[in-house]
Amino acid sequence: MEKVAVIGASGYTGVELLRLLSGHPQAEVVAVTSRQYEGMPIGRVFPSLGGYFDLVCEAVDIESIAARADLIFTALPHKSAMEVIPDFLNAGCKVVDLSADYRLRDRQVYESWYQTHSSPELLAEAVYGLPELYRSQIKKARLVANPGCYPTSVALGLAPLLEGQLIACDSIIIDSKSGTTGAGRGLKEASLYCEVNEGFKAYGIASHRHTPEIEQTLSQLAGESIQVSFTPHLLPVDRGILSTIYASQTNDYSTAELLDIFHKRYADEPFVRVLPEGQLPNIAYVRGTNLCDIGLVADERTGRVIIVSVIDNLCKGAAGQAIQNFNLICGIDERCGLSAAPLFP
Amino acid sequence: MEKVAVIGASGYTGVELLRLLSGHPQAEVVAVTSRQYEGMPIGRVFPSLGGYFDLVCEAVDIESIAARADLIFTALPHKSAMEVIPDFLNAGCKVVDLSADYRLRDRQVYESWYQTHSSPELLAEAVYGLPELYRSQIKKARLVANPGCYPTSVALGLAPLLEGQLIACDSIIIDSKSGTTGAGRGLKEASLYCEVNEGFKAYGIASHRHTPEIEQTLSQLAGESIQVSFTPHLLPVDRGILSTIYASQTNDYSTAELLDIFHKRYADEPFVRVLPEGQLPNIAYVRGTNLCDIGLVADERTGRVIIVSVIDNLCKGAAGQAIQNFNLICGIDERCGLSAAPLFP
Amino acid sequence: MEKVAVIGASGYTGVELLRLLSGHPQAEVVAVTSRQYEGMPIGRVFPSLGGYFDLVCEAVDIESIAARADLIFTALPHKSAMEVIPDFLNAGCKVVDLSADYRLRDRQVYESWYQTHSSPELLAEAVYGLPELYRSQIKKARLVANPGCYPTSVALGLAPLLEGQLIACDSIIIDSKSGTTGAGRGLKEASLYCEVNEGFKAYGIASHRHTPEIEQTLSQLAGESIQVSFTPHLLPVDRGILSTIYASQTNDYSTAELLDIFHKRYADEPFVRVLPEGQLPNIAYVRGTNLCDIGLVADERTGRVIIVSVIDNLCKGAAGQAIQNFNLICGIDERCGLSAAPLFP
Amino acid sequence: MEKVAVIGASGYTGVELLRLLSGHPQAEVVAVTSRQYEGMPIGRVFPSLGGYFDLVCEAVDIESIAARADLIFTALPHKSAMEVIPDFLNAGCKVVDLSADYRLRDRQVYESWYQTHSSPELLAEAVYGLPELYRSQIKKARLVANPGCYPTSVALGLAPLLEGQLIACDSIIIDSKSGTTGAGRGLKEASLYCEVNEGFKAYGIASHRHTPEIEQTLSQLAGESIQVSFTPHLLPVDRGILSTIYASQTNDYSTAELLDIFHKRYADEPFVRVLPEGQLPNIAYVRGTNLCDIGLVADERTGRVIIVSVIDNLCKGAAGQAIQNFNLICGIDERCGLSAAPLFP
Repeated sequence: MEKVAVIGASGYTGVELLRLLSGHPQAEVVAVTSRQYEGMPIGRVFPSLGGYFDLVCEAVDIESIAARADLIFTALPHKSAMEVIPDFLNAGCKVVDLSADYRLRDRQVYESWYQTHSSPELLAEAVYGLPELYRSQIKKARLVANPGCYPTSVALGLAPLLEGQLIACDSIIIDSKSGTTGAGRGLKEASLYCEVNEGFKAYGIASHRHTPEIEQTLSQLAGESIQVSFTPHLLPVDRGILSTIYASQTNDYSTAELLDIFHKRYADEPFVRVLPEGQLPNIAYVRGTNLCDIGLVADERTGRVIIVSVIDNLCKGAAGQAIQNFNLICGIDERCGLSAAPLFP
Repeated sequence: MEKVAVIGASGYTGVELLRLLSGHPQAEVVAVTSRQYEGMPIGRVFPSLGGYFDLVCEAVDIESIAARADLIFTALPHKSAMEVIPDFLNAGCKVVDLSADYRLRDRQVYESWYQTHSSPELLAEAVYGLPELYRSQIKKARLVANPGCYPTSVALGLAPLLEGQLIACDSIIIDSKSGTTGAGRGLKEASLYCEVNEGFKAYGIASHRHTPEIEQTLSQLAGESIQVSFTPHLLPVDRGILSTIYASQTNDYSTAELLDIFHKRYADEPFVRVLPEGQLPNIAYVRGTNLCDIGLVADERTGRVIIVSVIDNLCKGAAGQAIQNFNLICGIDERCGLSAAPLFP
Repeated sequence: MEKVAVIGASGYTGVELLRLLSGHPQAEVVAVTSRQYEGMPIGRVFPSLGGYFDLVCEAVDIESIAARADLIFTALPHKSAMEVIPDFLNAGCKVVDLSADYRLRDRQVYESWYQTHSSPELLAEAVYGLPELYRSQIKKARLVANPGCYPTSVALGLAPLLEGQLIACDSIIIDSKSGTTGAGRGLKEASLYCEVNEGFKAYGIASHRHTPEIEQTLSQLAGESIQVSFTPHLLPVDRGILSTIYASQTNDYSTAELLDIFHKRYADEPFVRVLPEGQLPNIAYVRGTNLCDIGLVADERTGRVIIVSVIDNLCKGAAGQAIQNFNLICGIDERCGLSAAPLFP
Repeated sequence: MEKVAVIGASGYTGVELLRLLSGHPQAEVVAVTSRQYEGMPIGRVFPSLGGYFDLVCEAVDIESIAARADLIFTALPHKSAMEVIPDFLNAGCKVVDLSADYRLRDRQVYESWYQTHSSPELLAEAVYGLPELYRSQIKKARLVANPGCYPTSVALGLAPLLEGQLIACDSIIIDSKSGTTGAGRGLKEASLYCEVNEGFKAYGIASHRHTPEIEQTLSQLAGESIQVSFTPHLLPVDRGILSTIYASQTNDYSTAELLDIFHKRYADEPFVRVLPEGQLPNIAYVRGTNLCDIGLVADERTGRVIIVSVIDNLCKGAAGQAIQNFNLICGIDERCGLSAAPLFP
């Protein structure tokens, strides 16, 4: 039984981590922290969790928590995460960080999109926690940078094509749509029910912080520097990301041929489902799970391939992938605690 | 490992049964039937289930299915259910029936609200599958009549008060609100997205078929004949029932005193959560689970008690309770396959 | 052309007033105020209004605004409203107040549910702005207390029965459900999209501030003191209130007889639609309008009548009714600016 | 006063036409037809319209209707529309057709995407009813082919760029998202509430029938043949289309420069709102109106321009534009009946 702590448990990523951990047979949650709700039972912060945990939110006391926990999930905003992670590492804990603080290899890129980095020496050590690409490194990692939600959906949707050099690297356009949990639980007018419901909008066009993370992974896959157009949108649903990805083919592969390449690439992946020709994914069919569903169409008229990739942003896009990484680090079966079927409807 | 079949697998109750059974360590699904989708893999009927089952929808062949399965879940409409259940029983199977066909003890009552009953001899044998009230009988049952969704929420909300004779039996008013999965997956204009979304309505006032089922259970609890006013409403959400129940107190108990009675009554029940004073339930906090959350307030001004009872209509109101009954019948831990925490948000 | 100002324009009631006023042929909006958005064009605060008004949000300067406007709509929270209304009256303006500050006749009742009243001398003068009950007084009023949303739906649903002494006064139970605009535009965790969406809950049981307002109107209609049970709920929709009202009949009227009484009572009312037998209202069918739809069923089994009354909480429950009152005060056709058909779907 | 008829009144386009016509001061609806609801008052088919029309659904009797109406709105599916339109024209009526039957100039293109055309001789005469592009022709038309919803959002979003030859014609990618009214009111499993709610999917990739219509208009604007990638998606909202459009710039214009071009192009258009730099459109801000909101960003890194164009699919995308065309044909002010502000929230 691995002892874990959740730092920053009162956001949507926190409650999703706890939901999944409550059913994980080899993880025991020994501490949850929340500045806002310090002293309150977690089952009161999230009535959904009532009866599942006998834990009270505490302040972040690294020494005390490190004495109890072997592995730390940090579900904090960027900047707050790097303020505690080096100390947890020094105290002997392993860390799966769900913030953006250790995802970018290049300190300058990080600092141009975020702010000064206080522990740049860890950037080289941190492993980017996308198991379908970096499984062997994750197993040996002390610090895993859990990927962003949009980048996860994009990397899995493009990996087989970039690895096979099947698309023109300067042609990639990514049109992504995310459920509202992606905006977090903070109090913003734009997150109010009546502002989101029955609405739909794009935001952060050509300026979203997930752009450099996407480009880092795609460049690594292609072996050359890639720049993309990335447009996120806000969906009036709780959960789910759907990325529609456009790229020009370098060959004339048919839909069936391309699907075959995807099927082979992901044959042994427990969480990727490549859909048969004629079927397209829907965020509703992966709800609550660590699954990524992928469909695609080759458009003969324009020579482009259009890939549609779908995940649950809170699960494969955050907490589920964090637990997948936890399993890998601890030598547990990768699917452990993550095998429940999607909740539909 | 118990071998089970799901008869009528292509509706919302069917997919929920399969979702729960996919994670049940002691159940193996050996057959699924669907008239509409005969010959289609169940993972194509419900893409959410892709990869979880290697089953193809078949027609209902009782002999063939009974040869493979020990226990049958019938997720058929009323009337269709009683057309196959006697034969499954004769073939040696046990049956958990999710339709209304065997819920009412009194054949005449059944026939006045539904139609002629073709196997009235089974009405006396069938056990009403509400474990919190009839656990010991369920354990020995051959045929369990799984309760309706509204009646489940009402019975659990009123049982402690009726058992303790704490309310006037002629004063009960039940105002219930159900998510749209309760309307089923059939093609009706009223079930279209644009007819339901951003709408809210009452329906079946003073004429809903769950009324006699509610009255049967409440009368049994009270030891006298009870008539209620019951008004169902359609909520623009997928899942969840919330019943707001009004009754006149026979004593002057305070909120705290009444909650104490509920706490004691449900202390050993794994699926009932009685909320502390000042807290009220929300359908969002039981989503996807077999839980029933109950809150209440004693209104000193009017002498009434107002109880709010909440379940997931597809789970504790249908498929979850069916599996709870399956566990009881088979001597499995009652919580088996039903312990996952609610999906919030 | 009447010159009007909207004090507190940046909430949902404010934007609804402006939406309706933009199409009102006899009203000209000369000022809008907002503390939060002072200096910002109203078409930037609400992009929906872009191009409809050439107004910038200003601070509340009573002298300046009174010099420009004849009639003031106050769309402020209670307490804030009574801080400015006496001064607007003294400056010669008429006022339609959408807050709760002048709705209750009895100062003590007000102060026990809200706080100390700073201008109690106006309580006797203020006219309760429910035209279907108090039309003649409204026409002559200087200060109209625009009714609350829940109380409007309840008063219209019960008026014919109480006027005709057709129900037992101690038997009234009101189960109301409101869209989320009713919770306002303030930043509260409970108003976030992901907290409301796919959820449903009761709140303020036996303690909601609209209770004394409801009881004041019903008592006046009945000619005797009435106490009710009133339970509000929060619906995951933007707009709409549906109140399901239960009462014991003093006679044995049938559904048809009761509907006939309602039809006669409301025959000349432009905004009340009494539905034919067998039809029940839906909030979706009054969206964006000043309509109140009413359906009912007499339940012979229990001797109760169940009335379902439906309005748009922002319109007939707030801004629409305020404009109806404005029309009456100014001698304009009552329907002016309020005749657009509902937006469905 | 112009006398009009709505052929095919029982769908979502039909009810939207009637909603708008109910408030149009110069249109009188003299007939509504519906095969499914023949003999039923339209206020019963759509309770929202109760009290607004004293009309009963009739069968399509061309002679009878043509004797009463001057202009016909056909809100029928393609194929059904061309079965009646020639006769209405022969009977001396003018026609605004909301189907796809007369939108494509080229009979072969029509027949390759739809089916055999039964009145191809009218294709040359029919005017494509996008007033911002073809206003003068519409004024003189006898038959107006009202544009599709997606094509409307795309044409308005790209017209200034194509007219100015500012983008590479082979680089256009259109990622569109539509509310569910776009799927119509027919009974399909995919249109059920529980299938759509909390879901999101792409459909018809590289094969949607609006593709040739889009390409026809864009080619005409550019003066050369254009092929696009067009991907529609289904949004869990009632109304609204948002199209995110990507194209490579031929120059290096900044966001401000491009917006300036749009502002000039649409300066006199009553229904197009070009948003200031830094602001992006939301479908919620045009709900219920004939408005098209457009925002854009020049992405210096990739040399692309990303345009976001938003309409209400039922209004500017169908019924509203039809009334705009009706106004033009009849010499009425183009804004007549279409000036109400958006319903927000």
